[in-house]
Amino acid sequence: MRASRYLIATQKETPNDAVVISHQLMLRAGMIRRLSSGLYTWLPTGLRVLRKVERIVREEMDRAGALEVLMPVVQPAELWEESGRWQQYGPELLRIQDRHNNDFCLGPTHEEVITDLIRSEINSYKQLPASFYQVQTKFRDEIRPRFGVMRAREFTMKDAYSFHVSEDSLQETYDIMHGAYCQIFDRIGLDYRPVLADTGSIGGSSSHEFHVLAQSGEDDIAFSTESRYAANVELAEAVSPSGERPVSSVEMQEAHTPGQKTIADVSEFLKSDPAQSVKTLIVLGECEEDEIAPLIALVLRGDHELNELKAEKLTGIASPLQFASEQRIGNELNCNIGSLGPVGMKIETIVDRSAAHLAGFICGANRDDFHLTGVNWGRDVEFSRVEDLRNVVAGDISPDGQGTLEIKRGIEVGHIFQLGDKYSRSMNATVLDENGKERVMSMGCYGIGVSRIVAAAVEQNHDDSGIIWPAAIAPFQLAIVPINMHKSDVVREKCEHLYESLRSKGIDVLLMDETKARLGAMLADVELIGIPHRIVIGDRGLDKGVVEYKGRGDSESQEFAVSQLEEILLEKFKL
Amino acid sequence: MRASRYLIATQKETPNDAVVISHQLMLRAGMIRRLSSGLYTWLPTGLRVLRKVERIVREEMDRAGALEVLMPVVQPAELWEESGRWQQYGPELLRIQDRHNNDFCLGPTHEEVITDLIRSEINSYKQLPASFYQVQTKFRDEIRPRFGVMRAREFTMKDAYSFHVSEDSLQETYDIMHGAYCQIFDRIGLDYRPVLADTGSIGGSSSHEFHVLAQSGEDDIAFSTESRYAANVELAEAVSPSGERPVSSVEMQEAHTPGQKTIADVSEFLKSDPAQSVKTLIVLGECEEDEIAPLIALVLRGDHELNELKAEKLTGIASPLQFASEQRIGNELNCNIGSLGPVGMKIETIVDRSAAHLAGFICGANRDDFHLTGVNWGRDVEFSRVEDLRNVVAGDISPDGQGTLEIKRGIEVGHIFQLGDKYSRSMNATVLDENGKERVMSMGCYGIGVSRIVAAAVEQNHDDSGIIWPAAIAPFQLAIVPINMHKSDVVREKCEHLYESLRSKGIDVLLMDETKARLGAMLADVELIGIPHRIVIGDRGLDKGVVEYKGRGDSESQEFAVSQLEEILLEKFKL
Repeated sequence: MRASRYLIATQKETPNDAVVISHQLMLRAGMIRRLSSGLYTWLPTGLRVLRKVERIVREEMDRAGALEVLMPVVQPAELWEESGRWQQYGPELLRIQDRHNNDFCLGPTHEEVITDLIRSEINSYKQLPASFYQVQTKFRDEIRPRFGVMRAREFTMKDAYSFHVSEDSLQETYDIMHGAYCQIFDRIGLDYRPVLADTGSIGGSSSHEFHVLAQSGEDDIAFSTESRYAANVELAEAVSPSGERPVSSVEMQEAHTPGQKTIADVSEFLKSDPAQSVKTLIVLGECEEDEIAPLIALVLRGDHELNELKAEKLTGIASPLQFASEQRIGNELNCNIGSLGPVGMKIETIVDRSAAHLAGFICGANRDDFHLTGVNWGRDVEFSRVEDLRNVVAGDISPDGQGTLEIKRGIEVGHIFQLGDKYSRSMNATVLDENGKERVMSMGCYGIGVSRIVAAAVEQNHDDSGIIWPAAIAPFQLAIVPINMHKSDVVREKCEHLYESLRSKGIDVLLMDETKARLGAMLADVELIGIPHRIVIGDRGLDKGVVEYKGRGDSESQEFAVSQLEEILLEKFKL
Repeated sequence: MRASRYLIATQKETPNDAVVISHQLMLRAGMIRRLSSGLYTWLPTGLRVLRKVERIVREEMDRAGALEVLMPVVQPAELWEESGRWQQYGPELLRIQDRHNNDFCLGPTHEEVITDLIRSEINSYKQLPASFYQVQTKFRDEIRPRFGVMRAREFTMKDAYSFHVSEDSLQETYDIMHGAYCQIFDRIGLDYRPVLADTGSIGGSSSHEFHVLAQSGEDDIAFSTESRYAANVELAEAVSPSGERPVSSVEMQEAHTPGQKTIADVSEFLKSDPAQSVKTLIVLGECEEDEIAPLIALVLRGDHELNELKAEKLTGIASPLQFASEQRIGNELNCNIGSLGPVGMKIETIVDRSAAHLAGFICGANRDDFHLTGVNWGRDVEFSRVEDLRNVVAGDISPDGQGTLEIKRGIEVGHIFQLGDKYSRSMNATVLDENGKERVMSMGCYGIGVSRIVAAAVEQNHDDSGIIWPAAIAPFQLAIVPINMHKSDVVREKCEHLYESLRSKGIDVLLMDETKARLGAMLADVELIGIPHRIVIGDRGLDKGVVEYKGRGDSESQEFAVSQLEEILLEKFKL
C-alpha cells in the first residue's frame, strides 16, 4: 500500500473519552472511529488487523472440522420464546419490531437459530457429531459501553456450535475446540490462559474461558507458576495448607478490646498479624418457604476474603448467599458483629480450610468489646465442618499440587461451554439413535470475541510510542520510509523496486511515499501504528550501500547492506 | 471437503413457497434456509459461493484503489436527520430504539455514515480523490420480501463511496468504477449489461445499473445487437425512423365505426394494421397553482406504448404525468376518448417521432363512432411539435446508430451513481482547495448486491437437473464420486490419493465418501449442487486404467486415462 493512496488517519492527541490504553492507541493509530456510543467504524488499518485475526480463526475452525455458515443478525422472537430466553434475557437483548409489528431481536448470540436449523437438517445419529461456526456481527445493548471495541455494542464474534448423540462425543469435540482455541491464540501471539470458568446462566456442565493477560482486564485469573492450571479467581480452589496443624502452647485468654471491631482494628490494637486471627460471618441457611431461615457461622482467616460463589454452593446454605441482619445477630447471638467468634458459638459453624489450620489465633469472644487470644482448635473449641470458603491469594498452593498460584488481570477473549441439552431439550432437537429411538442431542458452544482480540492484543503489546503488533496480525509487515523521495531519483527507484518486489511475494508493505512528509513524522506514524519492521532509505545511506533497519521492539537501529536487504527482510517475515 | 464430514442438505422436493427457479434451486441444493420472512441462513455450500463472489469484488475494489472499511449496521438517527432522510425514507428503513430510548436504524445504505467519517478525516484537496468500500450486512424492511435471497430483508452488499474536489475527478473515478464493475461480472462469468439508469430519488447527474440478463428479471433492458449500448426501457431513446416520410396518394375519408373504441377494435373493424393507425391521449399541461391545467394531446402510433417518464419531462407537461378525466375530455373536446384524433384537434398536440413518420394512417375523427382513414401529415393535418414519447420496442434502431435493439429481462445486481453534493452539502462535508477556500466535496456511490449475484447466477445458469455454476464461483470445482469405496481398497486408495493431491494444489474438491450412498443419488446431488466437473472412480474402470469424466454442461461423459487424470483435470480448472 502506498501512503499517498491510503488513509493513515493518525492523531497526536490522546482522546479525552478513552480510558484504557488500547482504546487510546486504536484511535490515535487510525484504526477505529466512534460513530455513536458503543458503535465503531473500522478504518483501513484496523480492518487489516481484524481480517488477519478472522483468517486465523477461520483456518483453525476449518481444521477442527467445523463448517462455516452465516446466520441472520435479525432473529424472530418465536425462537427465543421457545427456548425461554425472550423473557429471561435482560435489556442487553435489543428487541425490535418490523413494519408489520412482528417481534425480532438483534442477535447477541445464535443458540436458538442454529438449534432450529439443525433440528430440521439433521435427523440421524449417523450425521453426528457435527460442528458449525460463523464469523458475524453481534449486537448487545450494553448499559454502559466502554473501552472502545473492548466492550462495544456492535462487534464481530466467531460463534461455533456442536451437536452430539452422547456426552462422550461432546467431550471429544470440546477437547478439540479447546485445542483449536489454544492454537488460535498461539498463532496470534498472545500471552493467554485457558481458565476453568463458571457455567453461569448458560448452564451446562463444563466451561473454559480464554483470557489474555493484561493490566486492564476485568477478571482476576489465578494460575500456577509451574503447570497449566488456571482458573477464574471466583472458581479456583483454595487447598488445605500442607502438613499437620501446628499446636500452640499459649493459653486461651480474654482480652478487653473496647471499640475494636474490624480485623484491622483488633490486629493493630493487640499488635498481632491479621493472618493469626479469624473472622466470623453469619449467613442464612436453607429452609422451607414458610420457615425462618436458620443462622450459620462462617469462619475465615482474618486476611482472607469470603468467596460467595463457593459458600452458596454448600449444602445447608441459602443460594443466592444472604448475610444475616445485624439486628437478628444482636437478638440471637447477643453481641455485635465485630465480636463474633467460634468459641461458644451456638449455631452451626463452618470453618474455612486455612482458618482450620491455625493455632493460637485471635477471635471475637461473642461478648461486646472482648476478644480471645491463643485459641487452639480441639483444645478450646471443636469444629464439625471444614470447607473451602475463600478466594485464593497469590502464593497459595496450586490445586493441582504443582507450584504456587499467581493472580493477574485477564481480558476474556474466548469462552467454550458444554451446554448439554439446555437448548436442544426446550426446542426438541432430536435424532434417531442406532436403535431407531428419538434422542435429544447434546450441544457445545464456542465463542471468540474477534474484535475484542484486536483490543486485547494492543493492551498486551505497546510502549510509549504506540502499538507493537504481534507479527501475525500486524496491519503491515514492513514500512519503507524514504528520505526526500520526491527529490532523489535514486531513492525513489530503490523504494519502488523494493516495494513492488516484496508485494509480489505477498508481503504487506506500506510505502511512505507522501511528498513533503517529514521524516520524523513518518517514523512516529510507523511506530504508533506498530508496524513490526521498518527501513529508512536515503541518499546518504545508499552512497555507502546501506539502509537503516529497526524492528518495532528494538532499542537501536542497524544498517543492512542494500545487496542483501531483501533476503534479510524475507527471513524476518517468516512467522 | 469430505461429504462424510459435510452438510450436503440437498432436497428432492421443490418447496411450495419458492416461485423463481433460483430460490427453488438454492433451497434444493442446500445453499440457504429460510429463518423468517426475508431472512435466510447461508448453509456451507451457499456460503462457499457467496465468499467467492465477495473475494472477486474485494480484489477488483482494491485494484480500483478503494480502501476497505467496516461501518456499523446500527446507525444513529441524528445523521439521517442531518441529511433529511430520517423523514424522507419510507418504512423500508427499520427504525429502532435502544435501551435508553435513543433512535437508531438498521442501515439500508451508508451515505450518512461515510460522509460523517470523511468530513472529519479529510480536510484538504490533497487527500482527494479518495474511495472507500465495505462488504457488509444491510437491512431493508421490504413490505413483501420474495424470491429467496434475491429480495431479502437482510442481505450482503458491497457499497463504495468516493469523494472529490471537482466534477471531473468524480467522472474519472466513476469511469474507473464502471470498469471495475465490468471486470467483476466478467470474472464471475455472467451475461450482463451496464445500462443507463434514472438517477431517481438519490439524485445526482449520472447513473448506470448493471443487469444480469434472465427471464425472471424485474426490469426490461433494451440493448443493441451490435454495440455496447444498453438502457432501461424506461430511459432508452426511440429515435426517428430513418429516411423521408412516405407519402400516401389515398384520399382522407371518414369511416363509420359504430362502437369501435380501442386500436385493436378499430384495426379489426377496418381490416388494417395497428401500426398504420395513431392513438391520441390527453394529459394535463403545466400551470400555476390557482389555474386550471390546460389539456395537451399526445399522438402515438397505434402499436406503441406511451413512456410516461419521457412525457413528464417535456416542457409544458405536468410532472408527475396526469391524464385528463373522461368528463373533461367529453366537455371540452366533444367526443369520447375512443374517437380522438389529431385532425381538427383544438388543443396543443405533441406527436411522437414514429407517429410523425406515418402516411395514409387511421385516427379518430373527434366525433363519436367515426374515424378517419388515409390521413397524411402536412396535407390533412399540420403538426407543430414532434418528440420522443414512447417506449422502445424490439427491432428499433439503436440510439447510437449501431444495430437494432433487443429487449430482455434483467436482474439489477449493481448500481453506480454520481451523487454530486447531495449528501456533502446537507452534511457540510468540505475540504480546503488549493486556494485555501472551503469547497463542498462531490461524491459518487457504487453498490453491488453480493448475495443477489448468487441468485442471479443461478437464474442464468441452470437446467432440469439443477444449477450450472460459472467456474469462478462454484462451491467446489470437482466432485470425486467413488463406486463402492467401502468395499474396494483400490477405489478408496485412488480416490484418497487424488483428493489429497488436488487439495494440496488449492483445488476445491468434494469427495463423496459417504458409505452406502447410492451412485445415482450421489450423481444427482453433484448435478443439483452444480459442481462444474465430476469423475466417477470404480473397480471396473480402474481395471481398464480409466475413470469416467463429465463436465456439468456436457451431454455425454468421457473416459480419461488414470495416468493422465490429474494433468487433464488441472488443465480444466484453469480459469
